Amino acid sequence: MSKAEKLKARLPRGFADRAPTDFAATEKMLSAIRETYELYGFEAVETPFIEYTDALGKFLPDQDRPNEGVFSFQDDDEQWLSLRYDLTAPLARHVAENFDALAKPYRSYRCGWVFRNEKPGPGRFRQFMQFDADTVGAASVAADAEICMMASDTLERVGIKRGDYVVRINNRKVLDGVLEVIGLGGDDKAHTRLTVLRAIDKLDRLGPDGVRALLGTGRKDESGDFTKGAGLDAASIEKVLAFTAARGATTSETIANLTAVVSGSARGEEGVSELAEIGALLDAANYSDRVIIDPSVVRGLEYYTGPVYEAELTFTVTNEDGQPTRFGSVAGGGRYDGLVGRFRSEPVPATGFSIGVSRLFSALKAVNSPLVTGHEQPGPVVVLVMDKDQIAAYQKMVFTLRQAGIRSEMYLGSSGMKAQMKYADKRSSPCVIIQGSNERERGEVEIKDLIEGARAAENLSTNAEWKAARPAQFSVSEDKLVDAVKEVLARHFS
Amino acid sequence: MSKAEKLKARLPRGFADRAPTDFAATEKMLSAIRETYELYGFEAVETPFIEYTDALGKFLPDQDRPNEGVFSFQDDDEQWLSLRYDLTAPLARHVAENFDALAKPYRSYRCGWVFRNEKPGPGRFRQFMQFDADTVGAASVAADAEICMMASDTLERVGIKRGDYVVRINNRKVLDGVLEVIGLGGDDKAHTRLTVLRAIDKLDRLGPDGVRALLGTGRKDESGDFTKGAGLDAASIEKVLAFTAARGATTSETIANLTAVVSGSARGEEGVSELAEIGALLDAANYSDRVIIDPSVVRGLEYYTGPVYEAELTFTVTNEDGQPTRFGSVAGGGRYDGLVGRFRSEPVPATGFSIGVSRLFSALKAVNSPLVTGHEQPGPVVVLVMDKDQIAAYQKMVFTLRQAGIRSEMYLGSSGMKAQMKYADKRSSPCVIIQGSNERERGEVEIKDLIEGARAAENLSTNAEWKAARPAQFSVSEDKLVDAVKEVLARHFS
Repeated sequence: MSKAEKLKARLPRGFADRAPTDFAATEKMLSAIRETYELYGFEAVETPFIEYTDALGKFLPDQDRPNEGVFSFQDDDEQWLSLRYDLTAPLARHVAENFDALAKPYRSYRCGWVFRNEKPGPGRFRQFMQFDADTVGAASVAADAEICMMASDTLERVGIKRGDYVVRINNRKVLDGVLEVIGLGGDDKAHTRLTVLRAIDKLDRLGPDGVRALLGTGRKDESGDFTKGAGLDAASIEKVLAFTAARGATTSETIANLTAVVSGSARGEEGVSELAEIGALLDAANYSDRVIIDPSVVRGLEYYTGPVYEAELTFTVTNEDGQPTRFGSVAGGGRYDGLVGRFRSEPVPATGFSIGVSRLFSALKAVNSPLVTGHEQPGPVVVLVMDKDQIAAYQKMVFTLRQAGIRSEMYLGSSGMKAQMKYADKRSSPCVIIQGSNERERGEVEIKDLIEGARAAENLSTNAEWKAARPAQFSVSEDKLVDAVKEVLARHFS
Repeated sequence: MSKAEKLKARLPRGFADRAPTDFAATEKMLSAIRETYELYGFEAVETPFIEYTDALGKFLPDQDRPNEGVFSFQDDDEQWLSLRYDLTAPLARHVAENFDALAKPYRSYRCGWVFRNEKPGPGRFRQFMQFDADTVGAASVAADAEICMMASDTLERVGIKRGDYVVRINNRKVLDGVLEVIGLGGDDKAHTRLTVLRAIDKLDRLGPDGVRALLGTGRKDESGDFTKGAGLDAASIEKVLAFTAARGATTSETIANLTAVVSGSARGEEGVSELAEIGALLDAANYSDRVIIDPSVVRGLEYYTGPVYEAELTFTVTNEDGQPTRFGSVAGGGRYDGLVGRFRSEPVPATGFSIGVSRLFSALKAVNSPLVTGHEQPGPVVVLVMDKDQIAAYQKMVFTLRQAGIRSEMYLGSSGMKAQMKYADKRSSPCVIIQGSNERERGEVEIKDLIEGARAAENLSTNAEWKAARPAQFSVSEDKLVDAVKEVLARHFS
């Protein structure tokens, strides 16, 4: 094949390879999360990457590719299959399929890759990892409270300090109640309700005045674009704003504020009473300082049926434009009583939440969590190949080192000594082993401590005594190889 | 939605959910493999599940679905994407794409799911896991020898005893040499060569006489079906059979036999000399008893360019028909010098091998490897809910237990005590915590040791002293909860 015909080696857009350092650190973070979930009695389950498209909740039988947002393909019997786009829909399928065999309430967790057939962008991948925990079969909001406490424990376990995060809880029913009270109940008001929800969702960015405009006639932004408002009257607008501002200094204050706001709506009152119950459980377990009732949380609203919650990191980082900004949400979830029910004749209550793994990982790097920093494994000890006809002897040295549990390898390329040293350097080797004919005749090996060597080169003022005590290069007899290498490792990794 | 309209919850054919026990045990096995590879200086890399179809080596631009065997779909710019069907093709893409940044020779390992769009069958899944290790950029057969030694160490590390496995090495060049010697070199003989290779591949099943027939005029099997042979003359047939039987009692005997068989073919002689070099390295590192040169290994022949190797488990298991049978191959690989070269103008030598993860896992279960058996984690301690208005108090007990590192949970369902006990049983709980109004008044909790209880129920002859020392049910004051539960756990899991 000529050069011009060579394939170009490249990944599809929106996909990435993972480097070993990030990979190992992520694994540590995932183990810590797993341990926390196990402590709470949750158990692992794993579902495959591919499901029937209809089981995932996408039904587009009259289209060629039932595919907005999802990667799909047809099976040999013409049924549509899809790559999972989250871990919740497959869990619902799993629970429904194994309903009688499972101990219920069923607490489970799972971590895995999900796929979105969307336009990729900076930080937006088409394959990314989620870590979910769900309790299925528990109608009690004690299940929601438990997951929020577990979220809090998890963040601290991975290295986010108390005070640097908050888990915020709201209830979809309260929001429904507020909308009912201002006359926005019923199917014919669905469009206006959505406009209201979108307005509330902009509270963080626009502040109360901006939201007030969006709830009323509309708002012109800085670029001059006009967004039509929800058209509420003044009293309704204040009611909605009172709801979003209902968070008090204490849980009982928040509950009192909310009670006033939803007064007259049975659904709203039910929601407030659920929040009060959650508040009492948080108090009893001493979580009220970090897991709080906050009516400004509005997430995944079309999907959830009760409590919704979100874990937010409150510390400041510098964003792409160089501006300081709150780190923001790393996990969220809520109650979804309808999802398993799609498959079953009886309703099946469920609640759960999902951590964005790469987002949490970025956060741990931002706060220098000991979980992901400072634990870099040394590279392998490299035995250089000085004489090609001696590789059986070099191989034997490597074997001896590995027998002693020392990560090591013989150089396997065909280049000379300079390239081999460069290789060892690129591999972050703590030391290399050298045996040329002179050393061999003396029954010795030379050990070159690359870390000490680099330090000495950097720091010429290092005194002579120190250099004598920790020589960067020294010879030992062959049978002392393991001891000498252990000594070098102990210098730098004890 | 009426019941009749309910979706059926089911997985597509060829896919499976994984239960927590298998999941945890598999993770342990994977960690052990990872540790061994790290010790050898290999480093982790991870590629995504999706690649451009052409990068995987499938080019069928004139078909609607370029896809025999592979799950594929079109991107929004009409380019074909595929789910990876092994971990080797993505590695080749990764290396070619990052060629200058990588330290070479590049030793890497990766573990992950791969997908085959094939008819599923018993034990044949369309999603399965492979664990690969490869060395790219090393032309020396020391790289092949190293991977074979690492395969041996890995099998022992996961619990396969020495003597229960063998790693067998052959060389594609030797086979090519034999075929050249009998006049089957050259492109026009490709079809006959394939017939010969297929015949050799049946040696295990048909024995030398069956293969002799297939190398000659042909063979009629028991059902009366006739398979046309390769049409070789008697001398050529004996030459090929001499090749397959060339394994001697020692490596040097095998090498001597092979030297005689390939005499006159430069390529064959090169292959034998490579095997001799590998043999010397195995001797030097003391692996010759378990990693052996065996000319009867014929695997993946269209793909490999040099040494090929296979790890076979030699112990006997009972097959589906109740017959004793060798467990067989769990891993294999070889040298593939052409694969990275598809993307590059210079040739890039590479060698690597792949473990079938679920197959190795079955083997560990068959030999009762301590890695996968006898380490079952206890289920969670369950705090029963006796009075619904006391759940904050029960929640607090759970909190206290978790603070002490004890896996525990409060029952979250709405059923009565009998169902709660059944739940605890199904979760394999070591004990349950009970506090009804009587216990609450006394400031006590009752602890029911479910393991001891089951033992007592089974074994009525247990003497009274024993029962007194280890009561299956006892009360302690609330502040002794943690100590008492720890004591129960220590009874059974110390």
